Amino acid sequence: MLYFASDYMESGHEAIFRRFLETNGEHLTGYGSDRYCESAAEKIRAACECPDAEVRFLTGGTQTNQVAVDALLTPWEGVVAAETGHVATHEAGAIEWSGHKVLTLPQHLGKVDAAELRALLKAYESDANREHIVKPGMLYISHPTEYGTLYTKAELEALADVCGEYRIPIYADGARLAYGLAARGTDVTLPVLARCVDAFYIGGTKCGALIGEALVFTKRNLPERFLSRLKQHGALLAKGWAAGLQFDVLFTGGLYEQLGAHAVEMAERLKAGLLAKGRELYIDSPTNQQFIAADDALLAKLEGAVAYGFWEKLPDGRTVIRFATSWATKAEDVDALLAFL
Amino acid sequence: MLYFASDYMESGHEAIFRRFLETNGEHLTGYGSDRYCESAAEKIRAACECPDAEVRFLTGGTQTNQVAVDALLTPWEGVVAAETGHVATHEAGAIEWSGHKVLTLPQHLGKVDAAELRALLKAYESDANREHIVKPGMLYISHPTEYGTLYTKAELEALADVCGEYRIPIYADGARLAYGLAARGTDVTLPVLARCVDAFYIGGTKCGALIGEALVFTKRNLPERFLSRLKQHGALLAKGWAAGLQFDVLFTGGLYEQLGAHAVEMAERLKAGLLAKGRELYIDSPTNQQFIAADDALLAKLEGAVAYGFWEKLPDGRTVIRFATSWATKAEDVDALLAFL
Amino acid sequence: MLYFASDYMESGHEAIFRRFLETNGEHLTGYGSDRYCESAAEKIRAACECPDAEVRFLTGGTQTNQVAVDALLTPWEGVVAAETGHVATHEAGAIEWSGHKVLTLPQHLGKVDAAELRALLKAYESDANREHIVKPGMLYISHPTEYGTLYTKAELEALADVCGEYRIPIYADGARLAYGLAARGTDVTLPVLARCVDAFYIGGTKCGALIGEALVFTKRNLPERFLSRLKQHGALLAKGWAAGLQFDVLFTGGLYEQLGAHAVEMAERLKAGLLAKGRELYIDSPTNQQFIAADDALLAKLEGAVAYGFWEKLPDGRTVIRFATSWATKAEDVDALLAFL
Amino acid sequence: MLYFASDYMESGHEAIFRRFLETNGEHLTGYGSDRYCESAAEKIRAACECPDAEVRFLTGGTQTNQVAVDALLTPWEGVVAAETGHVATHEAGAIEWSGHKVLTLPQHLGKVDAAELRALLKAYESDANREHIVKPGMLYISHPTEYGTLYTKAELEALADVCGEYRIPIYADGARLAYGLAARGTDVTLPVLARCVDAFYIGGTKCGALIGEALVFTKRNLPERFLSRLKQHGALLAKGWAAGLQFDVLFTGGLYEQLGAHAVEMAERLKAGLLAKGRELYIDSPTNQQFIAADDALLAKLEGAVAYGFWEKLPDGRTVIRFATSWATKAEDVDALLAFL
Repeated sequence: MLYFASDYMESGHEAIFRRFLETNGEHLTGYGSDRYCESAAEKIRAACECPDAEVRFLTGGTQTNQVAVDALLTPWEGVVAAETGHVATHEAGAIEWSGHKVLTLPQHLGKVDAAELRALLKAYESDANREHIVKPGMLYISHPTEYGTLYTKAELEALADVCGEYRIPIYADGARLAYGLAARGTDVTLPVLARCVDAFYIGGTKCGALIGEALVFTKRNLPERFLSRLKQHGALLAKGWAAGLQFDVLFTGGLYEQLGAHAVEMAERLKAGLLAKGRELYIDSPTNQQFIAADDALLAKLEGAVAYGFWEKLPDGRTVIRFATSWATKAEDVDALLAFL
Repeated sequence: MLYFASDYMESGHEAIFRRFLETNGEHLTGYGSDRYCESAAEKIRAACECPDAEVRFLTGGTQTNQVAVDALLTPWEGVVAAETGHVATHEAGAIEWSGHKVLTLPQHLGKVDAAELRALLKAYESDANREHIVKPGMLYISHPTEYGTLYTKAELEALADVCGEYRIPIYADGARLAYGLAARGTDVTLPVLARCVDAFYIGGTKCGALIGEALVFTKRNLPERFLSRLKQHGALLAKGWAAGLQFDVLFTGGLYEQLGAHAVEMAERLKAGLLAKGRELYIDSPTNQQFIAADDALLAKLEGAVAYGFWEKLPDGRTVIRFATSWATKAEDVDALLAFL
Repeated sequence: MLYFASDYMESGHEAIFRRFLETNGEHLTGYGSDRYCESAAEKIRAACECPDAEVRFLTGGTQTNQVAVDALLTPWEGVVAAETGHVATHEAGAIEWSGHKVLTLPQHLGKVDAAELRALLKAYESDANREHIVKPGMLYISHPTEYGTLYTKAELEALADVCGEYRIPIYADGARLAYGLAARGTDVTLPVLARCVDAFYIGGTKCGALIGEALVFTKRNLPERFLSRLKQHGALLAKGWAAGLQFDVLFTGGLYEQLGAHAVEMAERLKAGLLAKGRELYIDSPTNQQFIAADDALLAKLEGAVAYGFWEKLPDGRTVIRFATSWATKAEDVDALLAFL
Repeated sequence: MLYFASDYMESGHEAIFRRFLETNGEHLTGYGSDRYCESAAEKIRAACECPDAEVRFLTGGTQTNQVAVDALLTPWEGVVAAETGHVATHEAGAIEWSGHKVLTLPQHLGKVDAAELRALLKAYESDANREHIVKPGMLYISHPTEYGTLYTKAELEALADVCGEYRIPIYADGARLAYGLAARGTDVTLPVLARCVDAFYIGGTKCGALIGEALVFTKRNLPERFLSRLKQHGALLAKGWAAGLQFDVLFTGGLYEQLGAHAVEMAERLKAGLLAKGRELYIDSPTNQQFIAADDALLAKLEGAVAYGFWEKLPDGRTVIRFATSWATKAEDVDALLAFL
């Protein structure tokens, strides 16, 4: 079996487990007040060139999105997202369950368009019935998006301009951030992202950690009583150090970048191979997710031999499928997949 | 420094980290559908003598309580708990945030009394205004309790009788279950607990795991669409195997029992030493938490030398403090603490 | 000033106030258990030809929608609605605040298309990731719609077929139901509506009552503990009779039908006059709401002389405005409006 | 049948219905922006000697409490109330359903004690684990209380001092405020109440209105986006004028005071009669609710002849019952009740 279904289906990086082993006999304080969380936060602040950033460690993407959105909004506000945004589609209603509406905009390769965002915010402000309408209180973006695509620096700045004009924060879901930062040709670095958005999370679960996400508030804007709000959401870890330590390892010696770079290299190898074999890519993704449209014959052939992700049915009967590489993908497996196709 | 502040302030058991290391290169499926979760569930079913039990793995106590209570109640029901119950006091309102009232009963050494529970349920049923009152829809107990005390088998059966009579489920918070099962003289085994309650969780975070809790439904009563509800609460782990593996290790070769037994042995050593030195115990706890009433002189002496838990102020000016042993406590540290006092 | 802004901006029908006066000195039981609520329910059951219907009286449309949607859904389900549906747009997030997502479908003159609904339900059922997606748990429609348009009997039956196939209930928002029932050429009567949907409300506030809406469950499907759920939502009236009495009056001697017929007659008079004057209607509405596209000159002319409703801006710069007639609109005011235009 | 079960079981005052009749043909604006709401607010501001007060009109007590508590608290705060407070007992969990915990204090004849409140707030502030505990974010009191008792001016000022010290608002539930203001010997007037608390509501439903409560914010503290929050709660009336008009009538010519005074006079007549007949009062209530302990023989005698309210069972087997007078109670009915007993 060749495994390309997703990037959260492999173990965690060995360096993390070795570091865990070294903690035996240590005494650690609770709820993220420990030395590992502090060290990881310090390294993340440095990597973001954002010395004031506040960093907190959680255990999953949906949890982090739910907590961040709920904490950045007033109870009467909603979050704006692309119609394909994770919060709008694949979180089982976690945002609504915490009381907030997801207000959607059209997606453009998974991305929100700044002009369309401005139009939505302007329409809201100029609507005589606006008090009967959910106020758009923040913007959610994902980077990479659900289609593996990336914002450019100019696109992020344009979104930041619009949000600044309407005084709402931007929050970026970085579940696969390592793969976005490592993409060829991207001009969005960690410092650029930290500067353009008000909060974001650095994905660990899909990028080499065992489990964990690092939530970063970049504008001296840690929500009030944030520890209590984490607890209220069931998101506060007694052993916060267990998540902090993982980021301490990932942000030591450039490991996070290396893991991202490896996955992207594997994806590029796959992409080049697919193109060489005359296969058309469904989306031109610069990150670790690659999409092709498969006919039924191909699906039958893959069955039992290659684990892939189902994406969507096309009107012409074909099925968009995803091959995801990860920090742990082996070159020989990519080659085997290409040979098989 | 001597560390007796709590039992979640040490690392995790080495066997778990070694097992994690062995997973390198493995491919695992997502959301708890993997081989480790299945293996751990099978071992837990066997340990509980409950072949039909459904087991799910979460990351923390408050999260597990919130999910379980919300899933076991209808939206218009509340949960009954002792006034000192964790859900009633130290969860930052996580239960209310998910829409449910905590209905409290007096605590007796941290425990709920079956007769008082029956009286509450009877009063509710016979109240002409009951549709204006929150329906008591389930019972929450903790075992051990927040005071380190334990229910007897007869007490659990009495609670089960009452709840059976009024057709409401019992849920047990087993954050420190290992220490309860290992207590001297207890007649509450895992099979007894599984038989008496409808759901409970086996605490990992405080009992040797890195992080994780195993939620067990014992009466073919897994709540409908439970995976979606976990996701809605932000409690669904993409890498569920990371929690499952830990319980697979803990329930192999009796490790969970051994870790519990060690902590209780250390607590008994501490207790005996305290009594030998003429110190009065504030509560006669058979588990890993030991309480004494300290005057200001003692508190001053402990400062900077011994990490302990603050419990409460007494009317006479003294302070109740807690010394908690754990699976990782060393006998020499207990002796050093006794020598110091 | 000529008043055509909406249909909730006039007083209530005189017969209701006279009936209120007659209640002086009466003793009435609480929470909707009184003789007026029972009498009104009996008359509504007869008018709906639905002898088993359960009827409850609330005070406003958003409140009724919120209560009905919350009570008809499980906590993990969402409500499907047209993108222009009231619950999706103009309720300040009341549905999301109660924890549920609004899943939208394209609108066709304000209506949901049965084929598109089936496609959405089928796509959900066949999605391998459906447990990560909000389950579409009911259908919300409005009749008349937010554009004043009406479903045909065949359209309602088609929706009922789809919902029956997927076992989800249909709920109809009848805020302006009187005006829908009175429309020329409609084949949707109260019995037809009651047969096709699982629950609906008969609008009072906009149709001659002082305030109040009658929520009808037609399929022996009153949600469990409905009184408690009303109370939980702050929607239970101690003096439920005050709402019940109004419907008792409206459903005596055909008053509700007469009030609806009058408004539609006034709307038809307006429509005919507009067409005679060569004005184009923006939407061909058979009910009490009439829409035209106005240029800036017309808007300036109306300013201070005619109260109308703002609808939306068109790309060509014109503004869609609404003239609403009501049960209380006078023919001379319609004529004055036509003369003025 | 003699009717003394409660004070919301009679119609509304005739003057209100006559005023409603006079509105025929009027055009009124929506959502509380009309002339009646403005006039009523102005009269209430004058009666409260609080020219800056903001007044909003809602339809019921539980609704008003839920909206006020939710709007005055942050999402992570709870409301402090006497254990017998309406929000703590008889609102079907409406406060918890909106996400907030009710933190209870012992009741003293239904009242909160300022010293106990200070102790609770101080204990919270000095608790090292306070971030894991729900923050007491406001105080709820009822005046009259659920036992018909009243705070003195000194007691209110003491509570205001404590709340001022800890910077949390006080909110008073005035469901039966007319009867409190009219009590003999009370030194709590509307201006005193308005000065001591941050928000309160003037009960209409139980004090002569058809339905309606006037929510008053006295400290330039109208919560942000309050109209949206009302809508979110389903508590915004399209025809807000229908509630406003009732308070306009009640606050014209001293009607509200007269209705309160009448009920209290009737209660005093009842009380004097009961004492004259040698009956012991269960609570010495100065308002319209009177309580006696009845044995089974008395209960049997009352059956079918006198409507009363059930209160609670006493350990000695007797039952505490309530006779409530109202603005509509007739002296001959009081005498008939006394003769019957």
